[in-house]
Amino acid sequence: MPGPPSSLSTSLRTHTCGELREGHVGETVSLCGWVANYRDHGGVVFIDLRDRFGLTQLVFDPDAGEKLSGDGLNAATHELARGLRGEDVVRVTGAVHARGEGLRNPKLATGGIEVRASALTVLNKSATPPFEPGAEQLPGEELRLKHRYLDLRRPKLQRTMELRHRLSKITRDYFDGLGFLEVETPILGRSTPEGARDYLVPSRVHPGEFYALPQSPQLYKQILMVGGTDRYFQIARCFRDEDLRSDRQPEFSQVDVEMSFVEREDVLTTIDGLIAAYAKELRGKEISLPLPRLTHAEALDRFGSDKPDTRFGLELKDISDVAAECEFGVFNKTVAGGGKVRGLCAPDAAAKYSRKDLDGLTAFVGEWGAKGLAWFRVVEEEGAMKLQAPTAKFFTAEQQSAIIERLSAKPGDLALFVADKPSVVNAALANLRNRLGRELALYDPSELAALWVLEFPLVGRNEEENRWEAEHHPFCAVHPEDVEKLKSDPAAVRAESYDLVCNGYEAASGSVRIHDPAVQQTVFDLIGMDSEEAGRRFGFLLDALKYGAPPHAGIALGLDRWVMILAQLENIRDVIAFPKTQKAADLMTGAPGDVDGKQLEELHIRTVAPPK
Amino acid sequence: MPGPPSSLSTSLRTHTCGELREGHVGETVSLCGWVANYRDHGGVVFIDLRDRFGLTQLVFDPDAGEKLSGDGLNAATHELARGLRGEDVVRVTGAVHARGEGLRNPKLATGGIEVRASALTVLNKSATPPFEPGAEQLPGEELRLKHRYLDLRRPKLQRTMELRHRLSKITRDYFDGLGFLEVETPILGRSTPEGARDYLVPSRVHPGEFYALPQSPQLYKQILMVGGTDRYFQIARCFRDEDLRSDRQPEFSQVDVEMSFVEREDVLTTIDGLIAAYAKELRGKEISLPLPRLTHAEALDRFGSDKPDTRFGLELKDISDVAAECEFGVFNKTVAGGGKVRGLCAPDAAAKYSRKDLDGLTAFVGEWGAKGLAWFRVVEEEGAMKLQAPTAKFFTAEQQSAIIERLSAKPGDLALFVADKPSVVNAALANLRNRLGRELALYDPSELAALWVLEFPLVGRNEEENRWEAEHHPFCAVHPEDVEKLKSDPAAVRAESYDLVCNGYEAASGSVRIHDPAVQQTVFDLIGMDSEEAGRRFGFLLDALKYGAPPHAGIALGLDRWVMILAQLENIRDVIAFPKTQKAADLMTGAPGDVDGKQLEELHIRTVAPPK
Repeated sequence: MPGPPSSLSTSLRTHTCGELREGHVGETVSLCGWVANYRDHGGVVFIDLRDRFGLTQLVFDPDAGEKLSGDGLNAATHELARGLRGEDVVRVTGAVHARGEGLRNPKLATGGIEVRASALTVLNKSATPPFEPGAEQLPGEELRLKHRYLDLRRPKLQRTMELRHRLSKITRDYFDGLGFLEVETPILGRSTPEGARDYLVPSRVHPGEFYALPQSPQLYKQILMVGGTDRYFQIARCFRDEDLRSDRQPEFSQVDVEMSFVEREDVLTTIDGLIAAYAKELRGKEISLPLPRLTHAEALDRFGSDKPDTRFGLELKDISDVAAECEFGVFNKTVAGGGKVRGLCAPDAAAKYSRKDLDGLTAFVGEWGAKGLAWFRVVEEEGAMKLQAPTAKFFTAEQQSAIIERLSAKPGDLALFVADKPSVVNAALANLRNRLGRELALYDPSELAALWVLEFPLVGRNEEENRWEAEHHPFCAVHPEDVEKLKSDPAAVRAESYDLVCNGYEAASGSVRIHDPAVQQTVFDLIGMDSEEAGRRFGFLLDALKYGAPPHAGIALGLDRWVMILAQLENIRDVIAFPKTQKAADLMTGAPGDVDGKQLEELHIRTVAPPK
Repeated sequence: MPGPPSSLSTSLRTHTCGELREGHVGETVSLCGWVANYRDHGGVVFIDLRDRFGLTQLVFDPDAGEKLSGDGLNAATHELARGLRGEDVVRVTGAVHARGEGLRNPKLATGGIEVRASALTVLNKSATPPFEPGAEQLPGEELRLKHRYLDLRRPKLQRTMELRHRLSKITRDYFDGLGFLEVETPILGRSTPEGARDYLVPSRVHPGEFYALPQSPQLYKQILMVGGTDRYFQIARCFRDEDLRSDRQPEFSQVDVEMSFVEREDVLTTIDGLIAAYAKELRGKEISLPLPRLTHAEALDRFGSDKPDTRFGLELKDISDVAAECEFGVFNKTVAGGGKVRGLCAPDAAAKYSRKDLDGLTAFVGEWGAKGLAWFRVVEEEGAMKLQAPTAKFFTAEQQSAIIERLSAKPGDLALFVADKPSVVNAALANLRNRLGRELALYDPSELAALWVLEFPLVGRNEEENRWEAEHHPFCAVHPEDVEKLKSDPAAVRAESYDLVCNGYEAASGSVRIHDPAVQQTVFDLIGMDSEEAGRRFGFLLDALKYGAPPHAGIALGLDRWVMILAQLENIRDVIAFPKTQKAADLMTGAPGDVDGKQLEELHIRTVAPPK
């Protein structure tokens, strides 16, 4: 007596392996899946059958034919079941039975039932796999990438792929509801190198010419605004031929957004709503809106970083004024030389870090250029707080009190300082702060702390090439208050830009764009791009701006990164179905690989062996 | 007194140009858009303001300040309005007024109102554009592609982009509702040339090696099934470096689908539902399901084509038996030589085609290799029907009657025949049929006639290379009834394949796949790929099949083509935001283009001038 077909039923199955409950008891069902587990208890074969939707326990009982009418299992079927091994693919028909008292498995959604098999078809035998997708102990990543089809059967990876699908779906539903159009922009584009290296594609029809894969659809989306699309989004594939880190891939996906007739506020509000939808629908969390906002200057001041992890405090404090007066040479000389002394106060950490641990922290900040780390334990003696450390003697009681007060420290805390030029102080302390936050478990890793960082500098100095270069890209609008400084003080000019930071990751980045061709040329001039070069590289955008460009602004969210954040994963390869290694290789297919000489000939190129 | 903000309102506008109705009369609104039309009636300036959402009439009346309280228009603003020209971008604030009797424009959604401007900001002036997006007469395609940002402002193209967005949205909602996961597969893949040429991407990290852009995600989606994804779909970008026809582009999008634990029926039913959703939501048409089905053999027999346009009849009839007996040498010799004589009956067409027109049709079928076209007018004489033509004398009265009966012809019809080997007869008549259907207006162009063509041949003979090759791709399952013929009679082996045809276009194509590695190797053997070559090219798929591949089947729909069909367009470049020319060039950005020598050096390639 089959129940109504589920939307997941097919010609071969009535239900999935995650679907049966006690309400199905008595039904005859057919399931398909992979043998995940095989146990033989005195001739009765128990199998956990696995598909994407779950696990169901199958029972092959040779005596069932006698015990249970209608559930007959003949000897041949029983023998077939005894021959099953892990990862074999089978179809089973049988009756749903309630499990006996004490035999229920509360950890399994289907744990209240089992299917007593009456028929078994082996759809495909599996060779002994190089690893078991269900194993507790995972083999090395290389083996898993080579046999990605086995790795993909791991429930954890399947949940991640589902989360990725749902995040994409929520994104599309959200923008569709606000009148945005998803427009597909070309993958075969023009090379306009800016920042990262392009992947190039030789043209067969145009000898000696090349397409480039897009680093982002930036120019196309601005063109769409000039074209009147009004509101655009796209989940866009982007490409950067760069040396890879653990959170980078040669190809990645971004949620690309652009809006016309807007100001910064419109973009921020729109994305606030999207992030709240992610949090609610994917993590069951209510996020209060608007998301917090910091200027770039405030972020550096309070956290030393433009992508602060705000799941915890541990804010940086400046004691340069006190340091200037003290007898500790490292401190007072740094301040005298124009540097800063800043630090943070790790709560209740004084007893947790031994001298050796503190040497470790000193080496750690050294990775960001800090020449040392000054540390003090905060103690209470005779009712008064003071600093305790070999270097404490260089500070008067008043100076110690001032520092303790500046840090809002309490006994048992650990105070840590770096004295150096501001960029080194920030880099060292920001990383130290993240490390301490993690080591001291100052936050709940499942929390989502998203915030906006606003008003990045428009340009930064490329000291090597002795020129200004765009911090974000050369299409960012200039903060209206800073237009006057474009020529007099470029370093002080703020862009109308914004980054969305979540849990310490840069999770989105965007800006109001320039829509006036004259302003665009001024910015090109500033970064040393004369009108000839600008025309050659971005002529079509400059042309477009001439013919009625609306005010527009946009943003791009790193989709892979959002999946990482929401799935609480730290390796980008765990959120992509077919990722590449840090050497940009696909270990399963062997890409990149050799090609026929005839293919290269048709493309009018030849390979050149690199110098040894 | 502004109404509630629409979801399309922004910091700069309260409403779009398509939104205001008589219910808004009395409200003060702000609109943004492009000047589409400028008229000066005795000092009163009328402007049609355009955005993606519509057109709204603006009125700048210099006397309004006196006539209408609160709608004051100062002289400076009026002067500014008089300076506006086509494609200028403006923001206007004013009051919504009902248009007077007789002044309403029923063709315009906003035609009941106008906005009397009190404030005007010119957001961006436009240079005189090379063409007006609103012009009745469109300039040549080349100019429009070069200035695509102007072309994209055309309402027709904007409606097409909206339709494309909605089709994608419907697709995703549909598959999501059935438990499919959208999984992104790599763009940087391995070259496994089969059929079309690959686009190649040189690797910087692996000198001398190349990635290839995917011709389809075929292998990845099969790997996903082996990986337990169960139901996969993706709107996937695909690439073919082929010479382009009017309905082809170097990059195109396909709705890519694969399902596990299914038979053919599951795929057909799933896609039936999708097509019904397209028809209903995008064209307001109810389509009755299941869609009609023909075997490949039936399609050739009845329509001469595996992609018949079934919006009209005009089916082919075989008269080879009669032709064998007649005195007309072309006919009887063809049949004697193993050929066929087949034809069709164009209703009421006898008087519509002159001798010269018939010569034209003869030349037309000649393009498909037919050496001639026999034509007969069907006439009634003394109560009996007969054939009328110079060649009619070679047919007895009985033979003429037999032919007329075979065609179900009536007086006034035009009977047309081709005598040749079957492949030529089919090609010639199928194309003739399509031409006559169009010329005789035998169908409503807005109709949607979708059907399945099933059971294509598994392999075809490549006479040049004297070998069998896969008709679809080498992963198609073999029709269960034909497995025995794989060695004895490959030409007669049917694949478990299916094409979805709509209005004469191949609109989707798929098959049940091979999931048994031994069968896969048998098919590779048949098409002359030994296990060494198969291993080199498809080793990872063969490996995957070894470790527990489920039965699976899938399909891919041409997304661009579906947009063409549903928008009733015939040029694929009209359904893509940034298309390429038939020479695979992007006229706007200038892609492909030159790149720096340094870029090529890093990629370990150099260009080779083609031989003159």
